[in-house]
Amino acid sequence: MSLINAHLAEGIGSITFNYDFKRNALSEAMTGEIAAALALFTQEGARVAVIRGQPGAKVWSAGHSVDELPTGGHDPLGWKDSLRMVIREIEAFPGPVIAQVGGSVWGGACELVFACDLIVATPEATFAATPAKLGVPYNATGLLTFLNALPLHLAKELLFTGSPMGAARLERQGVINHLVSAAEIDAFVHELAKGMAHNAPLSISVIKEQLRILAGAHALSPQDFERIQGLRRVVYNSADYAEGIHAFKQKRKPIYRGQ
Amino acid sequence: MSLINAHLAEGIGSITFNYDFKRNALSEAMTGEIAAALALFTQEGARVAVIRGQPGAKVWSAGHSVDELPTGGHDPLGWKDSLRMVIREIEAFPGPVIAQVGGSVWGGACELVFACDLIVATPEATFAATPAKLGVPYNATGLLTFLNALPLHLAKELLFTGSPMGAARLERQGVINHLVSAAEIDAFVHELAKGMAHNAPLSISVIKEQLRILAGAHALSPQDFERIQGLRRVVYNSADYAEGIHAFKQKRKPIYRGQ
Amino acid sequence: MSLINAHLAEGIGSITFNYDFKRNALSEAMTGEIAAALALFTQEGARVAVIRGQPGAKVWSAGHSVDELPTGGHDPLGWKDSLRMVIREIEAFPGPVIAQVGGSVWGGACELVFACDLIVATPEATFAATPAKLGVPYNATGLLTFLNALPLHLAKELLFTGSPMGAARLERQGVINHLVSAAEIDAFVHELAKGMAHNAPLSISVIKEQLRILAGAHALSPQDFERIQGLRRVVYNSADYAEGIHAFKQKRKPIYRGQ
Amino acid sequence: MSLINAHLAEGIGSITFNYDFKRNALSEAMTGEIAAALALFTQEGARVAVIRGQPGAKVWSAGHSVDELPTGGHDPLGWKDSLRMVIREIEAFPGPVIAQVGGSVWGGACELVFACDLIVATPEATFAATPAKLGVPYNATGLLTFLNALPLHLAKELLFTGSPMGAARLERQGVINHLVSAAEIDAFVHELAKGMAHNAPLSISVIKEQLRILAGAHALSPQDFERIQGLRRVVYNSADYAEGIHAFKQKRKPIYRGQ
Amino acid sequence: MSLINAHLAEGIGSITFNYDFKRNALSEAMTGEIAAALALFTQEGARVAVIRGQPGAKVWSAGHSVDELPTGGHDPLGWKDSLRMVIREIEAFPGPVIAQVGGSVWGGACELVFACDLIVATPEATFAATPAKLGVPYNATGLLTFLNALPLHLAKELLFTGSPMGAARLERQGVINHLVSAAEIDAFVHELAKGMAHNAPLSISVIKEQLRILAGAHALSPQDFERIQGLRRVVYNSADYAEGIHAFKQKRKPIYRGQ
Amino acid sequence: MSLINAHLAEGIGSITFNYDFKRNALSEAMTGEIAAALALFTQEGARVAVIRGQPGAKVWSAGHSVDELPTGGHDPLGWKDSLRMVIREIEAFPGPVIAQVGGSVWGGACELVFACDLIVATPEATFAATPAKLGVPYNATGLLTFLNALPLHLAKELLFTGSPMGAARLERQGVINHLVSAAEIDAFVHELAKGMAHNAPLSISVIKEQLRILAGAHALSPQDFERIQGLRRVVYNSADYAEGIHAFKQKRKPIYRGQ
Ligand code: NI
Ligand code: NI
Ligand code: NI
Repeated sequence: MSLINAHLAEGIGSITFNYDFKRNALSEAMTGEIAAALALFTQEGARVAVIRGQPGAKVWSAGHSVDELPTGGHDPLGWKDSLRMVIREIEAFPGPVIAQVGGSVWGGACELVFACDLIVATPEATFAATPAKLGVPYNATGLLTFLNALPLHLAKELLFTGSPMGAARLERQGVINHLVSAAEIDAFVHELAKGMAHNAPLSISVIKEQLRILAGAHALSPQDFERIQGLRRVVYNSADYAEGIHAFKQKRKPIYRGQ
Repeated sequence: MSLINAHLAEGIGSITFNYDFKRNALSEAMTGEIAAALALFTQEGARVAVIRGQPGAKVWSAGHSVDELPTGGHDPLGWKDSLRMVIREIEAFPGPVIAQVGGSVWGGACELVFACDLIVATPEATFAATPAKLGVPYNATGLLTFLNALPLHLAKELLFTGSPMGAARLERQGVINHLVSAAEIDAFVHELAKGMAHNAPLSISVIKEQLRILAGAHALSPQDFERIQGLRRVVYNSADYAEGIHAFKQKRKPIYRGQ
Repeated sequence: MSLINAHLAEGIGSITFNYDFKRNALSEAMTGEIAAALALFTQEGARVAVIRGQPGAKVWSAGHSVDELPTGGHDPLGWKDSLRMVIREIEAFPGPVIAQVGGSVWGGACELVFACDLIVATPEATFAATPAKLGVPYNATGLLTFLNALPLHLAKELLFTGSPMGAARLERQGVINHLVSAAEIDAFVHELAKGMAHNAPLSISVIKEQLRILAGAHALSPQDFERIQGLRRVVYNSADYAEGIHAFKQKRKPIYRGQ
Repeated sequence: MSLINAHLAEGIGSITFNYDFKRNALSEAMTGEIAAALALFTQEGARVAVIRGQPGAKVWSAGHSVDELPTGGHDPLGWKDSLRMVIREIEAFPGPVIAQVGGSVWGGACELVFACDLIVATPEATFAATPAKLGVPYNATGLLTFLNALPLHLAKELLFTGSPMGAARLERQGVINHLVSAAEIDAFVHELAKGMAHNAPLSISVIKEQLRILAGAHALSPQDFERIQGLRRVVYNSADYAEGIHAFKQKRKPIYRGQ
Repeated sequence: MSLINAHLAEGIGSITFNYDFKRNALSEAMTGEIAAALALFTQEGARVAVIRGQPGAKVWSAGHSVDELPTGGHDPLGWKDSLRMVIREIEAFPGPVIAQVGGSVWGGACELVFACDLIVATPEATFAATPAKLGVPYNATGLLTFLNALPLHLAKELLFTGSPMGAARLERQGVINHLVSAAEIDAFVHELAKGMAHNAPLSISVIKEQLRILAGAHALSPQDFERIQGLRRVVYNSADYAEGIHAFKQKRKPIYRGQ
Repeated sequence: MSLINAHLAEGIGSITFNYDFKRNALSEAMTGEIAAALALFTQEGARVAVIRGQPGAKVWSAGHSVDELPTGGHDPLGWKDSLRMVIREIEAFPGPVIAQVGGSVWGGACELVFACDLIVATPEATFAATPAKLGVPYNATGLLTFLNALPLHLAKELLFTGSPMGAARLERQGVINHLVSAAEIDAFVHELAKGMAHNAPLSISVIKEQLRILAGAHALSPQDFERIQGLRRVVYNSADYAEGIHAFKQKRKPIYRGQ
């Protein structure tokens, strides 16, 4: 593993992002390593996992790797997309996963953090969910992660503005569990993890799995879902979607025409 | 309208297929005309619609227009696909739609017939549902049409063998309402339609709509649906799918490798 | 009890309709007596119930008492309507309920028969579901009884034509369990009931309850349901609905205008 | 339009209530104008909508027009009720709708505000949800708006006490996005709207629609729903309901007997 | 493998029961071997599987191994029960599974047959679903297999009487696909399997999986399910349940008291 | 009643825990008395209920009576468990139930408080949800109480750490409605209750019931539920579960091995 450092001790597995030159983007390679580390932790009987950035890193993660998004005509967030897969691995890990966040969190990395079981962040951390900036038609299970983790109006503000929201505000609303200074966050998270690692792992595992299923149980008819899928297809086939991706790569502002 | 003849009298709208040189394939043009006729009937206050073939036609309809299926990489049965749209129009028509069937019915045309409210067929009519012959990943709402109209094991026989099933067998199982000889079917269907046309149209309309919603109410979680969609995507991106379409166009037997 | 005869022996409770001058219409009084008899049977530990008409009666039941339907402006099939209540009592009875049917069955009485667990009928019995003849907006749980008991296209034929369908056809389609001559039906039903009465009552009861819940589990969103309710309200507020009720009382054919 | 002022510029449509003599009650006329303005904005390609009161108005909106509630015997919140319709229009608007709130918000107007995508309010704004004061049986989709927008215990406090809750408290709980002084709120909302108007409209639209469907996907069986509807019917047929409406019109305190 | 013979040729895997001294009871050992054979077939790329008895065997399968049922106090049909596991393996096999049935089928073996995709039987075959004879509280997914494969009233007759039902009747109702004499059934099933084996396996697999999910999509609230589970628990803790198991082992008729 | 004091005046029923020597554990006897008091209040037409501890009590309630948990092999939280029953009684009470909390709240008592409609607490109150400390596999409806009452990440912190969370933090997140000093809490709760007692009871009752159903409407397929149940069964059959219960009784720290 070269894009992350994985470390397991005292039943606590920790994954530290180490992919600075790509700002810890959630590329296939990166998410593959995260998944592999979680699988290893599970196999070794780890009871808690922590996902964190390098101390002092400005960008915690830049989110979905825009280079790997299709430039049009194909669903950018299908079942086997790297972001979707890593989210499922976090949800499937049999113990609590703590996101330890410093620096800025962009796009799909917001969902990755919200999909963790607990979040501890420094006051400097910020979150910007950017699909509406890029023109990406986010998908239903992804949006459900937001809906379950945030108050509805906050989720919409995050998703519709694409503007960064500070950690303090998210802590006030119960999205982030604890706000801890950069100096103390390592020790704090370690204590938090240790406490959970001593609890009954089977009980935690079955509670986590039930909460996952219950929170995801927003049942739709096949027709409602195919209609949504059809609406999303219009978007990823649109000129705006292509424009969003191109503009991002050219580091310029996109111009959207609603087509 | 040139691919169908549409006619409205005594509150009964009738659509007669007239696209013999393409064996009444459900092309965009053809389904567009069917939808337009149903819309016109609705506007004119028709109370019943009948969909039928030309008397004596060997092929009632060849089903989805294979020429119009994408050759790979894209969902062939998305929300705006011509088959899916015409099925929704039949379901949305405010009165009963009777399928009057003679000759052979292939592929997507089977679903069109099963989606009608009542079915009257000649003993010679046959039904062959061909997605497994062509390699097409049928979609959830389409399969729900089969599941709701047929006994489960029969639906599977039809879908997995792709072999023609005779009208007599389907009548025995309650899929077809009545079996009537070619000589008498026009008169029989007219009587049946007339009877329903004298009943209370608002009552029929609200009963039909409720039955549509109830029969479609097989609610899934977003994750279950996205997983299905992912499985279907593997199929329409497969070599087998491309082979199926190519073999059909070359009028040869496909060779499937499961890849 | 004067509208029915209730009798309990060998663990088998039997209800015989005795309301000939109203053709065994399912009035509040009648359904109240049926419910009371079922409650008594339950209390006395009956294991099977049988609902039947008088031997030789031409009309098994004329269905919902049209005199008791509101003449407009109010839902004729709300939660506390007599038909809806008696259906729920049949479903809640802890053992099998057998409908023993001779003669003709009209309107809501069709649903009552279909809601029974098993149906034994004479070859002369006929079923006519008449909401579309009267202009009544049948309700969702009522339609679900039809959807669960009949093949879909048959259910629609019954509901949209309002014409009588013979017992032989319904037996062929698995709706009626057994067709037995009028001379032998009493003995046949008694044997059938006795067999079930010797089986494990707790097992039967929990299987019946699970089947009830599973068959009813066609889950809708609140919005889908309120929309249906809104459509039904338009119908029971319509001129056609009032016309249907009036015409029935005046014993003339209604004239529907779709308004 | 006379009850509202509608204005569209820079892709931002704004609706200003102008119906002071009725305290901006959500009458059929008023909600009709709101719906018409939203339809016009959609047609003109507006990307964001803002709904606001007159600067300095004491009452932002008095909610459902009590004059238009049926005095008994009929569902006051059916599918075509003016409040229910305007809520659906806000949800269907293809871009974000911002509620800009000053003054007091009563009854159904609370739901209208909560149904908006984002809420910006002055510290003086207050919210009083009054169905329990009036005796009205609120309906399921209406309650779902509360359930999705507020923490559960807060929603219950609002609905069961009917007492005004201040904007500061609702901002603390993530219901209101931002608290801004009356002097600065216009500029603040304009900036917020402009930011979203530059984002990709198709992406926002498909995200909003998915969130709407997911948040509404609390699926019930038809029987559960008809039972609810039956309970509500008991309430709007009750003496208490009539008393509540009468007392309101006579500007006196109602006396409820639970009947 | 000693309790079954497994054989794979031309893409068709066949499993022949070989456990006559226990009348092919679905013991843990037996179902383990069936599951292992299906897993092997999948791995070897088999496209169709056939499950059959020895030619001429009187009992096709005696169903759940009563010796292995708990004698009370514990759920006899939990997630890891051998019957439940083998049913899931049949549903998960990526191609069609054909049940080739001669002789009598008892108890849980009925569900195994109904859970297969297609059924071919000799006219002599009979089916007796015995939970109500034994006092067993069948479980929800098991009952859903019956509900999906049979007309509702037939399913209830089978489950409530526990009496054998002949293959001819089940073929008439679309439960059994084909009735073929013992002399010809091998050849018939081979032809049927060969036809499906030449079709597109990916298409069949995704259709089968969707049908499985759609047919199982009878969504319940957690409370409804826990209530069912509570009702079932009362039954497997009852004296009647213990009596049923004891009487079976003592080969005498049970006496049930409803307690 | 000896474990609680029940008192009814001005339409407000109040239940005061009086079971100090067992730290107000929710034993069968205790929950039975609570249920009986609520039933009496309902019968007497009470409009609001209050559940509270003795003034100054250190422990508000110690939660589920660990003495009454099965030591293994049986579901500790089945349908008829005392905790599950009292939760359902609180939900079924036709008016608002206010939890008035001082002191510490442990285990199942957390759910009892969260299941109340409104919560008023002293700043000293603390909440510790202990299933993961004891090794108990909490059940789906119980977890839904947490999911509906708390922000998701907070619910997980509470459940996975088992550590006490202060009332101030829960008030900040909208879980607790009001924080009031021990000196003033009686008067405050009385005023709050009185206000609601004057509102329309039928309206409150139907709103409460709808919110209960909507909040519980996280619909699952039977297979998803049986899988959960199977996972829970593994846990309550595990060595860790037995160890948790034993260690608790021996007042020592448990040692969990994940088996
Ligand atoms: Ni392409
Ligand atoms: Ni009226
Ligand atoms: Ni035991």
